[in-house]
Amino acid sequence: MPTFQIDCLLEYQVHEPTEFIFQVEASKHAWQNILHEEIVISSMSKAMSEMPAIAIKHFDRDQGVNRFARLSAPAEQLFRLHYQAHVETSIPTRPIDAEENAIHLLPSETFYYLAPSRFCESDLLERMAQRTFGHIPTGYQRVQTICDWIYAHIIYESGSSDHTTSAKDILVSRAGVCRDFAHLAIAICRALDIPARFVFGYMPFYQAMPDFHAIFEVYLGQQWVLFDATKMGPIEEFVRVGTGLDAKDVPFASFFGQAELLKIQPQIHKLEA
Amino acid sequence: MPTFQIDCLLEYQVHEPTEFIFQVEASKHAWQNILHEEIVISSMSKAMSEMPAIAIKHFDRDQGVNRFARLSAPAEQLFRLHYQAHVETSIPTRPIDAEENAIHLLPSETFYYLAPSRFCESDLLERMAQRTFGHIPTGYQRVQTICDWIYAHIIYESGSSDHTTSAKDILVSRAGVCRDFAHLAIAICRALDIPARFVFGYMPFYQAMPDFHAIFEVYLGQQWVLFDATKMGPIEEFVRVGTGLDAKDVPFASFFGQAELLKIQPQIHKLEA
Amino acid sequence: MPTFQIDCLLEYQVHEPTEFIFQVEASKHAWQNILHEEIVISSMSKAMSEMPAIAIKHFDRDQGVNRFARLSAPAEQLFRLHYQAHVETSIPTRPIDAEENAIHLLPSETFYYLAPSRFCESDLLERMAQRTFGHIPTGYQRVQTICDWIYAHIIYESGSSDHTTSAKDILVSRAGVCRDFAHLAIAICRALDIPARFVFGYMPFYQAMPDFHAIFEVYLGQQWVLFDATKMGPIEEFVRVGTGLDAKDVPFASFFGQAELLKIQPQIHKLEA
Amino acid sequence: MPTFQIDCLLEYQVHEPTEFIFQVEASKHAWQNILHEEIVISSMSKAMSEMPAIAIKHFDRDQGVNRFARLSAPAEQLFRLHYQAHVETSIPTRPIDAEENAIHLLPSETFYYLAPSRFCESDLLERMAQRTFGHIPTGYQRVQTICDWIYAHIIYESGSSDHTTSAKDILVSRAGVCRDFAHLAIAICRALDIPARFVFGYMPFYQAMPDFHAIFEVYLGQQWVLFDATKMGPIEEFVRVGTGLDAKDVPFASFFGQAELLKIQPQIHKLEA
Repeated sequence: MPTFQIDCLLEYQVHEPTEFIFQVEASKHAWQNILHEEIVISSMSKAMSEMPAIAIKHFDRDQGVNRFARLSAPAEQLFRLHYQAHVETSIPTRPIDAEENAIHLLPSETFYYLAPSRFCESDLLERMAQRTFGHIPTGYQRVQTICDWIYAHIIYESGSSDHTTSAKDILVSRAGVCRDFAHLAIAICRALDIPARFVFGYMPFYQAMPDFHAIFEVYLGQQWVLFDATKMGPIEEFVRVGTGLDAKDVPFASFFGQAELLKIQPQIHKLEA
Repeated sequence: MPTFQIDCLLEYQVHEPTEFIFQVEASKHAWQNILHEEIVISSMSKAMSEMPAIAIKHFDRDQGVNRFARLSAPAEQLFRLHYQAHVETSIPTRPIDAEENAIHLLPSETFYYLAPSRFCESDLLERMAQRTFGHIPTGYQRVQTICDWIYAHIIYESGSSDHTTSAKDILVSRAGVCRDFAHLAIAICRALDIPARFVFGYMPFYQAMPDFHAIFEVYLGQQWVLFDATKMGPIEEFVRVGTGLDAKDVPFASFFGQAELLKIQPQIHKLEA
Repeated sequence: MPTFQIDCLLEYQVHEPTEFIFQVEASKHAWQNILHEEIVISSMSKAMSEMPAIAIKHFDRDQGVNRFARLSAPAEQLFRLHYQAHVETSIPTRPIDAEENAIHLLPSETFYYLAPSRFCESDLLERMAQRTFGHIPTGYQRVQTICDWIYAHIIYESGSSDHTTSAKDILVSRAGVCRDFAHLAIAICRALDIPARFVFGYMPFYQAMPDFHAIFEVYLGQQWVLFDATKMGPIEEFVRVGTGLDAKDVPFASFFGQAELLKIQPQIHKLEA
Repeated sequence: MPTFQIDCLLEYQVHEPTEFIFQVEASKHAWQNILHEEIVISSMSKAMSEMPAIAIKHFDRDQGVNRFARLSAPAEQLFRLHYQAHVETSIPTRPIDAEENAIHLLPSETFYYLAPSRFCESDLLERMAQRTFGHIPTGYQRVQTICDWIYAHIIYESGSSDHTTSAKDILVSRAGVCRDFAHLAIAICRALDIPARFVFGYMPFYQAMPDFHAIFEVYLGQQWVLFDATKMGPIEEFVRVGTGLDAKDVPFASFFGQAELLKIQPQIHKLEA
């Protein structure tokens, strides 16, 4: 089983007392084993003198699949979060023969991932999904076809979308980043009655600068299967952080107050066996 | 404590094998006590002969706050669901002095209800919410002011919106039904950092025909408080069925297949003490 | 040159004094010669007695390319407009080798038809147009390819769109009627720097019931060329009524007041030589 | 009659052969008299050597109300347009008692300005307009009330909108610049059956940096009356350049090719009597 070292640094200039909720910690998920982890908060005053430690409150949702670190940062600080972890993963081999489930055979808990969400308006894309992918043999290959279609038709372009951009918007504008690719794929899958959800985490990119990565997973056969419409890195080297309806469920950071993101360095690399 | 009798009848013509998920059962919630309940499915063939019983699978989310009845209806049936219950409720007295919470004092589990959702694009309404309600004294009265504003500015009109209509749409079109009123209120509250969620259930209307009703609740002080921007009935006589991010979380019925809703009669009346 | 007989009947129930502006008369356009025409207004009171004649004011735009009949209908009338005409047309043979113009060679007056309009948001579809049609050899065949793509990807379905539906909406919803097909085609053409405009008029349909028809025309070579993405009838048997930016420029009827359309019968048939 | 000196400088870096259409010249309009004007194009190569003159083609629409200067710029140039003019204006005194026209009394040519356009979706804002302004006494004061409402409810913020932002968007986002203020006002007026159109030109601002300014005019009594919802300068010192349905009708510059706007300095000042 491959092991990954994660080294994630976030730095903020805090202008007024600000509440932060971070989701940067590796997920407690069947496919991954956290060998070691540490989250360190440090802060400096304007005069660059060390400040008293800020207390972290940890909480989670979904039995630890989504883990959060919450803290109250005082004003006028240079504030830094540093998360380090060693995570062993065991993502199942790609089940390229996996079938879609007939609706009456879907586990009841997967229905939640058939409904539309803020960024995945599957209710608006039903005809598009049927017209474009309705005739394709169902199962793993159909979801792969959806990924390929998105890769061919949507331009990956930083800055072309923003934090309010949804699947419907992307279908019109034809440009976005990884979260937009995932949102569109999810919306199309749900419109075809394939349970689909948003997954974000760490992935070593082939070429791009280190950043968080957003992909998605669908329920095929009796399992959730990861897919990535961006082709930016090896999906078998993905370390999961968040799982939800869409990006608004699992942001790497939410904050309430006035603060400025100065640095974001979510690095991952595979450790030698 | 008041007690209510619920009598909910749904009738469908089913054209092909169809999977149904119903959410019509009273919620298992601290404010209500289900004294008795029964859900009966009956179906007739085209020739109006009685058909074999259809098995119901029950499941829930959120510790029974949301309860679902799932079933697979065969083709060519006249299919009827009948839910009857006696429910005793104890909705707290309206806490008209309740305060909003400073962000750093909000319980961590309420943050989920600050994020935008499919029908409540709070991310898009921030300036509108600030500009219109930012200067109003915070707390219970501010939420009431939001309700009053919606009541004054949005026309209640059956058929003016559909199942894809969102808070943003309503802000433009200025017409909708109870779920739209709730969605807009929720979006505005979240934009003001007040946790807010969608609630639907049974309510005896002052004048309208019996139907499910959608309202919302916000987190004030240390409790969730129900509000209703439609003024259609007495909020203290509300029996809760579903609680979620918005209407797509808690539809009274979802179905997958070809079927037609023939009758919907969600009746409630208060029993004499 | 073929000659067509047009027989267009519109009938309204007028509830309060209502101002009507009709655009049903054949266009004064180089490709058509109006041999004869007559517009007759008649109205009945509730008691079905004949009412005094209503005066028509005629006006036009664009040197008679768009002709309007305006009138003030009193309240409580059954009101009928009847337009009859014989029109000889000479639509040029389809110029299947026509080239697109390089921007610097376009006549200045065609630039007006490169800008976005209410129902043709070409500004939002630039990447979609480039990504889907950018690589196709330019000219007549590219426009035909756009028509074919629309025909293949959009479902023609009465009632699937309404009078506020735009090209962007259709690209998402994938269903519409003739005016939506035209709007999407126009938006795509403008996004590719091909001047394009909305045309509506009379066309004998292969199968559908008589109705007004909406198509579009683009500037290729040194001429405007008609296209129809719906394939509903023979484009060489089209009689033009309106030409504009999109459907809002040239509605067959606008009215201000309370009235109800009871009957719409825009018939056309080709006269034997 | 006041006289104004206009001095407008635009500078572009042109990367590839690019077609420009400029609309910067004072309008030929009943309210203004162009005493003198001159438009000069100059261009430099990369090596800053003077380049051969670029020919300007002049054309107009609407009998000179909208005037355009078109030119083909070669690649790799620093390209500069300089427009200078002396314009005497005679904007009528504000007709504060002007009435709205009953529909049947409106001149036929004003109906064109009742229809929705790309950035002014009056068709979507009917209920909002009625609900918010329907009860206000009609006429000049109602239009002024609309301006005041916009000024109070929309935040003027550079960069908060872009060239695809429409009235509907602004109603949701509540922030924009002068063109957005004008678009929203126009959409509301049209929704109330008041003919309204977009006007842009030069105005000496009270505080802001020199820039083009967008306002609007509505048809009241028997005249078009200018209004400005931004309160950024004296409306009686406005010099008109463009008049149209909305901003897409009358952009100060359109270009087709790859070019970069380096400088924009549309200055105006009032000459001493």
